[in-house]
Amino acid sequence: MPNVKVAVVGATGYTGAELVRLLRGHPEVELVSLVGNSTAGEPIASVLPSLMGLVDGEVEAWNPAAIAERAQAVFCALPHGASAEKVGELRDAGLVVLDLSADYRLSSLDVYRQWYGEHGDPDRVGRAVYGLPELHRGALREADLIAVPGCYPTASILPIAPLLREGAVTVDGPIVIDAKSGVSGAGRGAKPRTHYPETAESFRAYAIAGRHRHTPEIEQELTQLAGQAVRVIFSPHLVPMTRGILSTIYLRPSAGVNAVRCTELARAFYEGSPSVHVLDPDSYPDTLWVRGSNRAMISYTDDARSGWVVAQGAIDNLVKGASGQAIQCLNVRFGLDEGAGLRGSATWP
Amino acid sequence: MPNVKVAVVGATGYTGAELVRLLRGHPEVELVSLVGNSTAGEPIASVLPSLMGLVDGEVEAWNPAAIAERAQAVFCALPHGASAEKVGELRDAGLVVLDLSADYRLSSLDVYRQWYGEHGDPDRVGRAVYGLPELHRGALREADLIAVPGCYPTASILPIAPLLREGAVTVDGPIVIDAKSGVSGAGRGAKPRTHYPETAESFRAYAIAGRHRHTPEIEQELTQLAGQAVRVIFSPHLVPMTRGILSTIYLRPSAGVNAVRCTELARAFYEGSPSVHVLDPDSYPDTLWVRGSNRAMISYTDDARSGWVVAQGAIDNLVKGASGQAIQCLNVRFGLDEGAGLRGSATWP
Amino acid sequence: MPNVKVAVVGATGYTGAELVRLLRGHPEVELVSLVGNSTAGEPIASVLPSLMGLVDGEVEAWNPAAIAERAQAVFCALPHGASAEKVGELRDAGLVVLDLSADYRLSSLDVYRQWYGEHGDPDRVGRAVYGLPELHRGALREADLIAVPGCYPTASILPIAPLLREGAVTVDGPIVIDAKSGVSGAGRGAKPRTHYPETAESFRAYAIAGRHRHTPEIEQELTQLAGQAVRVIFSPHLVPMTRGILSTIYLRPSAGVNAVRCTELARAFYEGSPSVHVLDPDSYPDTLWVRGSNRAMISYTDDARSGWVVAQGAIDNLVKGASGQAIQCLNVRFGLDEGAGLRGSATWP
Amino acid sequence: MPNVKVAVVGATGYTGAELVRLLRGHPEVELVSLVGNSTAGEPIASVLPSLMGLVDGEVEAWNPAAIAERAQAVFCALPHGASAEKVGELRDAGLVVLDLSADYRLSSLDVYRQWYGEHGDPDRVGRAVYGLPELHRGALREADLIAVPGCYPTASILPIAPLLREGAVTVDGPIVIDAKSGVSGAGRGAKPRTHYPETAESFRAYAIAGRHRHTPEIEQELTQLAGQAVRVIFSPHLVPMTRGILSTIYLRPSAGVNAVRCTELARAFYEGSPSVHVLDPDSYPDTLWVRGSNRAMISYTDDARSGWVVAQGAIDNLVKGASGQAIQCLNVRFGLDEGAGLRGSATWP
Repeated sequence: MPNVKVAVVGATGYTGAELVRLLRGHPEVELVSLVGNSTAGEPIASVLPSLMGLVDGEVEAWNPAAIAERAQAVFCALPHGASAEKVGELRDAGLVVLDLSADYRLSSLDVYRQWYGEHGDPDRVGRAVYGLPELHRGALREADLIAVPGCYPTASILPIAPLLREGAVTVDGPIVIDAKSGVSGAGRGAKPRTHYPETAESFRAYAIAGRHRHTPEIEQELTQLAGQAVRVIFSPHLVPMTRGILSTIYLRPSAGVNAVRCTELARAFYEGSPSVHVLDPDSYPDTLWVRGSNRAMISYTDDARSGWVVAQGAIDNLVKGASGQAIQCLNVRFGLDEGAGLRGSATWP
Repeated sequence: MPNVKVAVVGATGYTGAELVRLLRGHPEVELVSLVGNSTAGEPIASVLPSLMGLVDGEVEAWNPAAIAERAQAVFCALPHGASAEKVGELRDAGLVVLDLSADYRLSSLDVYRQWYGEHGDPDRVGRAVYGLPELHRGALREADLIAVPGCYPTASILPIAPLLREGAVTVDGPIVIDAKSGVSGAGRGAKPRTHYPETAESFRAYAIAGRHRHTPEIEQELTQLAGQAVRVIFSPHLVPMTRGILSTIYLRPSAGVNAVRCTELARAFYEGSPSVHVLDPDSYPDTLWVRGSNRAMISYTDDARSGWVVAQGAIDNLVKGASGQAIQCLNVRFGLDEGAGLRGSATWP
Repeated sequence: MPNVKVAVVGATGYTGAELVRLLRGHPEVELVSLVGNSTAGEPIASVLPSLMGLVDGEVEAWNPAAIAERAQAVFCALPHGASAEKVGELRDAGLVVLDLSADYRLSSLDVYRQWYGEHGDPDRVGRAVYGLPELHRGALREADLIAVPGCYPTASILPIAPLLREGAVTVDGPIVIDAKSGVSGAGRGAKPRTHYPETAESFRAYAIAGRHRHTPEIEQELTQLAGQAVRVIFSPHLVPMTRGILSTIYLRPSAGVNAVRCTELARAFYEGSPSVHVLDPDSYPDTLWVRGSNRAMISYTDDARSGWVVAQGAIDNLVKGASGQAIQCLNVRFGLDEGAGLRGSATWP
Repeated sequence: MPNVKVAVVGATGYTGAELVRLLRGHPEVELVSLVGNSTAGEPIASVLPSLMGLVDGEVEAWNPAAIAERAQAVFCALPHGASAEKVGELRDAGLVVLDLSADYRLSSLDVYRQWYGEHGDPDRVGRAVYGLPELHRGALREADLIAVPGCYPTASILPIAPLLREGAVTVDGPIVIDAKSGVSGAGRGAKPRTHYPETAESFRAYAIAGRHRHTPEIEQELTQLAGQAVRVIFSPHLVPMTRGILSTIYLRPSAGVNAVRCTELARAFYEGSPSVHVLDPDSYPDTLWVRGSNRAMISYTDDARSGWVVAQGAIDNLVKGASGQAIQCLNVRFGLDEGAGLRGSATWP
């Protein structure tokens, strides 16, 4: 019998749709309301065609009090900037909020302003828990405002975290993170750069060399893990596929550390984490192996000639990189099994 | 608590992989054994990489007695021709067999021989139940040998069946079925015609105009529904995508019948069928809307100028076109809820 | 030494870009001006990135007198409806006009209005030559206004034309044309239905059963060839690829006609046509084999069970379906070799 | 009037096919013979379907004397290892040889053996000219054996070369080269890892961290440019597209050097090079912009936070990364215009 009632605000984008897909299969959560803005009043199934014949009811209009009457927690899947104001109202109404936007991820208001502009709810900045359960499981159990990480940070932090915490890599120079994402990361809105004819048979970078907003988020978490300032050179690329992120990370290990040791450290670090799988050294994760699942696959490989280690992390950007991770946070927050509703394997091939 | 124990033979092809994915999420079925041939003894997760970290154990060697000791039913996902011999042994061992090959789909041994060559278990030909639950639900409840339909027949028969049964279309001329399939329908073996560089940015037909082996299977079922011989012109095409089939079917309706009436007939026919969704007239199903799910979406559209009706059916060839449908048959056979383990929506987008 | 000077109006869409690509390689044509609307004044290479470093100069503003001073002929690659007005001015300025829009393809103003609405230059309707050189080579030699055919009509008419002219198929019932197109046919504007995540791994129909505007264009030409009214059931589909159209056509042959005979008729009909290649019976053309080239590949296959013939035609929608065909028309009009500048093979794979 | 007669050996793979496509449009070269092995005696058009109706004649059997009677130069598009023996015979027959394999790229026989095994023509190792015209134009004019570079080295060396020659980057640490390739780089043979269903919607690395055979080739050229040993960490990835390579390169500039300066250096370095286009700083090249053309687009971007520079290079792996570059070498060798037959823009989109 479901014991947590939840709502989804911003139900008609890709992360909203994915929340609905996953929550329908969650044995202990009941989805009581889908809230949209431009689509309020429309049948859910006309907005999310994959739900035709499966989900009745309409997209509801924004009404935080009504949500609070029926739900304990709410997933907020709104764009950056637009989210903060709504989150504030939802928190004021007493709801546990899992915010999928970037609005509460950065603990420094100054840094937020530098990358995103003014904040709509500045008093709560720094008071959310960063929703990467593998790093912040304890704090999440008590959190009422959870900032679900970005997709790139999830794929990039998970392979590095065990090494930084153990001092296994040096951070006196920048860490190169060369990341590649499927197109759904750009959201549901049609844009020239995601128009099919200019995306298929195309591979290109965007916002490279520290121009992407996920840069400070990655640095914040890595710095906290290392106990000293960590700089990254973060360069995202767009892959002609719908789902998936692969991060390739170039690391200078400390003396005596190699891929075998990195693998051991990561396996120890992620023991008990149902969503992370550490491959054997020299195995390379494939985004297709995690497509549709809430799994991260990570690996380490020696570059024998330079002595460096190449780390990789693969996720589905809409699941472990967004909606699945949000549900994983909910599970932790409400004392459910962390993997509840998230045990599915990839839809392969 | 699971109450049906099953095995999968031929676990390392795409339909085998899909059976494992779906059975892992089935609340009332326990998968007790995966049997492979060339991969016996290998870890399951090295053969099916999406299961790494999720499934322990090894692929087992062929041993029907051992299967019968542990399981009640077995899914047989072997190639056409190779399947019959194994199915015979599994049936002899007392197992309920759900055969995903073509070996028992045709009730006439002569027709089988004409299209496939000699049969390895000729005595059982004609004694299997054709595993399209929407047409043969009653017979399936008693069946010990179930011939799970082909992917093209599923996508093609479902839109036509309600009309034939009600006499809503004429069958004095051939029915044109122009079908389009994703590449996973060709199986896991690498072949020149499924080599990525010659498949992407390529659209082409193959085995058109009655050369494809699914032709007699479609005609067998349509003829049974119509109560008279039905001829189809069946032309499959290969779409540069992994999963999905869309059939576009050109029908001459009986007097007074149009798309609205076809839609009504189909909705009545499929009432209580959890896997079929009938769209409104003039809506066109999209394979992406059913990708990864056990759903068929069908629709009807008037061609006002000719008076004909164009019917369409969309499925995921590996789910409703193969493995999901096999599980649906198992559910019916063992008195479970027909939709158990199969309620997931598509992984969209 | 180039002996025909041409301009392109509407240079920044896909067909405009393709005209520039092909004209750069044409030995006897000089491109003297590119005219755009919203992009006038911008460097050509910033609008068409594949030309960076190859083409200098800016997109020019609309000025028909200036075009007429420098060019003899102009390709007009504007949207339907917007084209007619400009074409009128270009003709008034004395230019030979090759219009890639639909505005002059239909010889009946009534039919045009029924499908497209009011016409901006009604007096010239019916006075253009339909720019399918294989059918109208003679008239094109004298034409000052050429209506370049649509992509679907090109792929659909070419396989049928030889048969209709010879009375080799019956037309008392509708001809089923099931057509499939790559996404570039939808143009350069980003739209939800061409957004990558909802287009990849998706196959779907649109505007089927006579709702697509290419329907009357196909019927006009087929009717003229047959000498009697021909009806088609035309159903287009969207393929997850950028370029290419395949039409699959279901025909009832006259007595004694089969695929071998159809192939003979087509080879005779297209003798001397450099852009059409007739495959052997039972071979199926692949859009990849013509990608980037001005070629049509067509074939015929017997459906032995019904006695029908399945015809197929494959083209690149942007080349033989638009810009390449326009240049082919120019060649005919100006007495150049019909294949000049158009002899390139496909960019395969 | 063509003044160079050439043959192609190994005509039926992708680079062979691309040679034929490009040579057909070359104004000063005549292709007199296509030589294949397993396909000798078959019509060319049945082996290379895009040539149906365009090219008559058959694939010829191996006969170096016959080639030498008719041709002055030969392109050898055979696999690594198999090439050396044939090249030796062709050289002995007096032909100028442009070898597209890796067999003569490494000037050190020891290094060759370490990466490829025994060499079939060891005496000529070190006597070929590395066929990157932008670096070795002078030597190519005199060369009788030209080792056409690999696709990854071309995309990786071109952005780095101007900086190394001018001492604009430091090489005391390894240079990170994160490269991404379309699938045609794997050749025409069907393999599990290029099977469509496991390649589409998949992004993955292979042979990373110095395991790929292009590593020593890149280091050889960079070391020569720098005048001191250069180490790279080279990590290739497979992109679900047919053509294109993008290399993303992480460089530590010398004092006072930034992206603007790198751009200036590159523009000076490539002045007069028709196949290289240097973008403005902060612009990122897209593989689609060069698809089908013999062009490299390169760019430089500052990482303001670290002071590093990110360089990128995009090419079509089959053209500038193989067959087009081979023709460019031929042009240089025979005193033709370097861009002859290679001026085409990309087939965009």
